[in-house]
Amino acid sequence: LENIIKQDPVLQRGRRWAFQSREERADTGVWKHLYVDKLQADLGVTDVKEREYLRDAAAAHEGYVLGLHFGMIIPTIKNQASEEQQKKWLPMAESMRMIATYAQTELGHGTFIRGLETTATYDPKTEEFILNTPTLSAIKYWPGGLGKTVNHCVLMAQLFTEGVSRGIHMFMVQVRDLDSHLPLPGIEIGDIGPKFGFEEMDNGYLKIDNVRIPRENMLMKYSKVLKDGTYQQPPSDKLAYGSMVLLRCSITASVAKCLAEACVISIRYSAVRRQTEISPGGEEAQILDYQTQQYHLFPLLATSFAMQFAGNFIDDFYREKYPDIAKGRFDFLPQLHAMSAGLKAFSAWTCSAGVETCRQCCGGHGYSHASGLPKIYVDCTPACTYEGENMVLMLQVARFLMKEYSKLMNGQPLSSVVQFLKCDLTMKSCMAEEVALKCLVLAYQHRVTRLVADAANCIQDIIGEGKSQQEAWNSCTVRLFWAARAFCHAFVVENFVNTVSEKHLDEKTREVLTSLCRLYGVHGIITNLGEFIQDDFFNSEQIQILSHTLTVLLREIRPNAVALVDAYDFPDTVLQSCLGRFDGQVYQALYDYAKSSPLNEKEVLDSYYKYIKPAQMPNKELFSRL
Amino acid sequence: LENIIKQDPVLQRGRRWAFQSREERADTGVWKHLYVDKLQADLGVTDVKEREYLRDAAAAHEGYVLGLHFGMIIPTIKNQASEEQQKKWLPMAESMRMIATYAQTELGHGTFIRGLETTATYDPKTEEFILNTPTLSAIKYWPGGLGKTVNHCVLMAQLFTEGVSRGIHMFMVQVRDLDSHLPLPGIEIGDIGPKFGFEEMDNGYLKIDNVRIPRENMLMKYSKVLKDGTYQQPPSDKLAYGSMVLLRCSITASVAKCLAEACVISIRYSAVRRQTEISPGGEEAQILDYQTQQYHLFPLLATSFAMQFAGNFIDDFYREKYPDIAKGRFDFLPQLHAMSAGLKAFSAWTCSAGVETCRQCCGGHGYSHASGLPKIYVDCTPACTYEGENMVLMLQVARFLMKEYSKLMNGQPLSSVVQFLKCDLTMKSCMAEEVALKCLVLAYQHRVTRLVADAANCIQDIIGEGKSQQEAWNSCTVRLFWAARAFCHAFVVENFVNTVSEKHLDEKTREVLTSLCRLYGVHGIITNLGEFIQDDFFNSEQIQILSHTLTVLLREIRPNAVALVDAYDFPDTVLQSCLGRFDGQVYQALYDYAKSSPLNEKEVLDSYYKYIKPAQMPNKELFSRL
Repeated sequence: LENIIKQDPVLQRGRRWAFQSREERADTGVWKHLYVDKLQADLGVTDVKEREYLRDAAAAHEGYVLGLHFGMIIPTIKNQASEEQQKKWLPMAESMRMIATYAQTELGHGTFIRGLETTATYDPKTEEFILNTPTLSAIKYWPGGLGKTVNHCVLMAQLFTEGVSRGIHMFMVQVRDLDSHLPLPGIEIGDIGPKFGFEEMDNGYLKIDNVRIPRENMLMKYSKVLKDGTYQQPPSDKLAYGSMVLLRCSITASVAKCLAEACVISIRYSAVRRQTEISPGGEEAQILDYQTQQYHLFPLLATSFAMQFAGNFIDDFYREKYPDIAKGRFDFLPQLHAMSAGLKAFSAWTCSAGVETCRQCCGGHGYSHASGLPKIYVDCTPACTYEGENMVLMLQVARFLMKEYSKLMNGQPLSSVVQFLKCDLTMKSCMAEEVALKCLVLAYQHRVTRLVADAANCIQDIIGEGKSQQEAWNSCTVRLFWAARAFCHAFVVENFVNTVSEKHLDEKTREVLTSLCRLYGVHGIITNLGEFIQDDFFNSEQIQILSHTLTVLLREIRPNAVALVDAYDFPDTVLQSCLGRFDGQVYQALYDYAKSSPLNEKEVLDSYYKYIKPAQMPNKELFSRL
Repeated sequence: LENIIKQDPVLQRGRRWAFQSREERADTGVWKHLYVDKLQADLGVTDVKEREYLRDAAAAHEGYVLGLHFGMIIPTIKNQASEEQQKKWLPMAESMRMIATYAQTELGHGTFIRGLETTATYDPKTEEFILNTPTLSAIKYWPGGLGKTVNHCVLMAQLFTEGVSRGIHMFMVQVRDLDSHLPLPGIEIGDIGPKFGFEEMDNGYLKIDNVRIPRENMLMKYSKVLKDGTYQQPPSDKLAYGSMVLLRCSITASVAKCLAEACVISIRYSAVRRQTEISPGGEEAQILDYQTQQYHLFPLLATSFAMQFAGNFIDDFYREKYPDIAKGRFDFLPQLHAMSAGLKAFSAWTCSAGVETCRQCCGGHGYSHASGLPKIYVDCTPACTYEGENMVLMLQVARFLMKEYSKLMNGQPLSSVVQFLKCDLTMKSCMAEEVALKCLVLAYQHRVTRLVADAANCIQDIIGEGKSQQEAWNSCTVRLFWAARAFCHAFVVENFVNTVSEKHLDEKTREVLTSLCRLYGVHGIITNLGEFIQDDFFNSEQIQILSHTLTVLLREIRPNAVALVDAYDFPDTVLQSCLGRFDGQVYQALYDYAKSSPLNEKEVLDSYYKYIKPAQMPNKELFSRL
């Protein structure tokens, strides 16, 4: 598939991503998206992973301007619209007669959905909803593609029927004319302007002033409003969760991929780059041979594997448990919710910070768009915010942990992912010279257990002082966050250990992956040592073993480092990095990048004639002209 | 001064920074720079700080395209050129007939200056130097303004005379014609292309092919090449240090300012933004009231003060000690070198990571250029690399510490900044309920002392195994880095404590600053707890006190948080942030930002007609056209 892409003449068109203006990027984003869709159809590629490889190879940097339409709106119609509605809308959406996005976030409201201010008030006389963004802070802001691309949106709004607020519901709203593409009356709509990244995407704003839509435009698979305005509740609140959780589950794998790309670039470059003679007069050393460089990069390489495996886990977990949930069996929902929220937040923070570290490890050249790294960072970091702000999600994980802890206190059975909370906190670590994986896992589980108990005690203490449950919670959120973070970390370590222990691995692969797994575990302990040793879980000899093992592992991984990043097998067209090229011709590529800079199209810039030359004149005629 | 700027009609011209293309930014950068220079001259502003305030108010976002010419080249001519050379070049430089930059970094060579490959070979027959960039990796790459703006550069090159390499020296090289501004023969020169930030700056590349310059163009204040090629050494190698150290000393204050700006924006926004009802059905809370938000932002607010004070210290230290050094008395040079390197690296890492945390604390809106935060980050983060790569500098600090440690072992007197290394490592912390500042300082000093001894032992152990000094050093750089980092951290804490203890402070100010100082100290301990407690320096009760004090301090600072950021008194024109406005009208500003997005200049984008409309047709005529 990648070879087909490499040879496709249409895809070779246009300037390098870094050289394009925002307008060009928005333009390129659209045609590449449509072209790749067509390629996939022509080639008959239907497998999800294969489609992703193909899209990456063809348009890794262009973003998916229509991604929300195909990836989120069509599934939402399938999951939330009645059969009749589906019959009407699905063909329109699939043929792109209707292009839609998901309009949830408002200027003043994000993760807390109940706070949305947009209203949909049912008028039984005309059998219509009257839509409004009644305040400045109610204006929809951020939805991808809303500004210029779409002609419809699925609007999240507070439903009012019979004078009563019924909570947030979804409405299909046409915003632009299907032929002229001009905004409809009562609709003010546009792009929200330049951002850190995602320049190709016309994230939009939408102001609605008394727009009427027919009753049939409320998505009515579960909740319903009858002609006379009677409201029928959904069988369960939990059914709306589905697509949000699915999207969240996909984030861990996608941020892991960002970190993997950054590791490929920075590790390959560190094998090419030389700096400082290691002994006086000798050759300058590859910077990858410096222990400090290894100390920054190898734990991130290990993290990229750890997060990839965690992403696989949560994808599988979702696929395994979701059918039950869709059938109304909610036993696994709390665990699925906690794991998807926690892994999303933990992986997004870890991977986006890791990408920045990789960039800094490439020195000055990392700062150039020639490295490809700034682009990876700005693509990755929004994952900390979208689909649930990370800290809010972490506190949802903490809430799950507190519930489980109170089950533990009451002698009730625990959910499968937190069985270890039963462990004995007075036990000491089994860590010895060989740094057994089992002892690493136990250390992380011990840390969670202590921090969970600590957070629970914090809450109890404050309740004991006569404060409300709510006040106590709010006074302990830092400790709750520590507990939740430790829980996610422990899970990722355990899952990594499980993955390297799988039977089907050949022994050579297992050996290398085990080094990485051990490094991930040891580095995490050293970096967060205080949380592990406050209760003397490790003795000082064990701490020495771990510190020492850290540098031993760096040395152990060094000979395999380049092979490990090559194993990711990203084509150069995906990385688009002068530093991360497979052939190592870094300096030639940087030189070529410079020569083709758009600023070099003119030998002398206009500013020379307009400003600099006049400023050189003794009479400074420039300033009379400005 | 700021009011004059606000009312100046010329400065109001042009589009908002975020809406400009790279070409516009490069253009704006030049004229604003020249215009502000003229304003400063007309107003007779000569004080360094006042000039900075004025420039910030007028052109905070535009960068200083000519900054290196005025800030670095003119001082370099004064410090490194002979009197005769100064007489020739200074008037040319001051009138801008000559515009120059400093050409040091090469494609393959950065911080390790001795590795530079560019050559200047003296030819006594013609009394000229022959300049060459003999390899791909020798091409000059990155110097600011080199691409399009300058007509000269101060070239760093390996000098060869009488067939012998004489090390790196400086040469004044003309690169473009003074009238046509076209490159001279043998010179290939241009912009290096788009980067993460600094778009207005034409960082350049320079390839030199057998260019001859007269003997008089070597900067000859110290080293000299006589007509016959005889080389005269400088009286001391150390004299060349001066301007590099000066620039480094200025970085701590400048990254502290970046963090301060980010704190102003994120704390003001957190007082406006509301999310999630704190009790069911109640009003949504200001996000600044959430403990987790305080936990992220208040330690950074404290850090911004800590780093500002550290910046003041190192500036004063330089000004106090440099005159001696210039006279050839080098007693303080090792300390000045270590402190300037360490504070530069420590502050650049801390502040640039802090800016990103501030951005993430603003949720989705932080990601928009409307917040002003992405721009602050990309302006700040290169400080981790330029003027000495951070990790390299940290290891230079470590080398200083190892020398001092060996003095300690040999009973010799220690430099003033490391007197505390004499402390008794078996002593335990004096920390008690009131968290005395003195006990905080001692804790940080204890940590350094332990880590310094630990690194020294690491080296000794490996030498004991029969390895060379060099090998031993290279095997212990991670521990050396930990020691150096802890040293910088301890210094910043101690300097903060000294500052809040100054007699001239009024008591109310001292009280508030003391809370911040205590928070800085306590938060640093909790975040790096492992390094403090490995030897049981704190007992478990003391750890509990510190954890508890952390949240107490957050609560204590909350009522003063907005006043503290207002105290920085940055005008809105400097912040250019919809979120950080003094008047709090965040949502109106975001709405206005969106409405004025350049993408909204056309109601329907060309891509709609070119791609989307054809793609909607059943025959998909689009694809035959692409």
